[in-house]
Amino acid sequence: MFPKDLLDKAARALDAAKAKDVRIATAETCTAGLVSGCLTSVSGASKIFERGFVLYHDSAKATGLGVAEEISRKHGAVSAEVTQGLAEGALKNSTAGVAVAVTGYAGPGGGNEKNPVGTCYIAAARPGATTLVERHVFPGDRDGVRLAAVGAALDLIVKRLQ
Amino acid sequence: MFPKDLLDKAARALDAAKAKDVRIATAETCTAGLVSGCLTSVSGASKIFERGFVLYHDSAKATGLGVAEEISRKHGAVSAEVTQGLAEGALKNSTAGVAVAVTGYAGPGGGNEKNPVGTCYIAAARPGATTLVERHVFPGDRDGVRLAAVGAALDLIVKRLQ
Repeated sequence: MFPKDLLDKAARALDAAKAKDVRIATAETCTAGLVSGCLTSVSGASKIFERGFVLYHDSAKATGLGVAEEISRKHGAVSAEVTQGLAEGALKNSTAGVAVAVTGYAGPGGGNEKNPVGTCYIAAARPGATTLVERHVFPGDRDGVRLAAVGAALDLIVKRLQ
Repeated sequence: MFPKDLLDKAARALDAAKAKDVRIATAETCTAGLVSGCLTSVSGASKIFERGFVLYHDSAKATGLGVAEEISRKHGAVSAEVTQGLAEGALKNSTAGVAVAVTGYAGPGGGNEKNPVGTCYIAAARPGATTLVERHVFPGDRDGVRLAAVGAALDLIVKRLQ
């Protein structure tokens, strides 16, 4: 179901976590479970992937994982600040040693001048380390943007574990 | 990314929820975000799909969504009882009006005499209504079992909303 390059990235993320003896948690808005779905396409993931939080409706995003409503209001639900907060919130709400978060506008609707359709923020957090945050603008349709975001999230897990 | 028959089922589940003016929540173990990922492949889902809980590691399943550890221990993490508890727990931990839960053994490992690889339990809960629970044994490989479970979960949302 997932393309081979994403399954390879998932295997690399799982291996990187295994090497550090930590579990992975996810927090997803626009990808809505596809990062966790891809990670668990790899057999044996259950020893390493712990849990995922999918926050989709505005009511879920605003109150999800302890991100302050003020931060959402000030920066927008699709922003570096909220994505960082979601990754750090996923850490706090699990026993994982690394957490990745994704927010974005997959289209066809949504987006704005600052963050057009295709914009995705990815954040990866580890306890006691700086949270990495990336901004991407992916081309393609809804599926294309979402799969590209999954790939970037899996890569950022590896990067944060290095 | 998802086959057309699943996207059609997702659209029907979203339409059924919209018709009753309720939001959808999910709780997934073996499908690990694919039910939420499929629902949100349909543009406009953000008004109807609220949030999802992915519980994958044993530590997450045992404590997830308020399912009593005693029930997990007595019946097993893949059981009608735990799946019903997860669906009802997803309702309690959201403002959704219908929640669906999936547990199962997607393979290649796992399973036991009573519940061989391919066995999936699906539960759909609504406030004030009996929770529907189904047991399936799906053929195929890991991907095949997981996609079949996604389809059954989407169908059971529609059934519980009728």
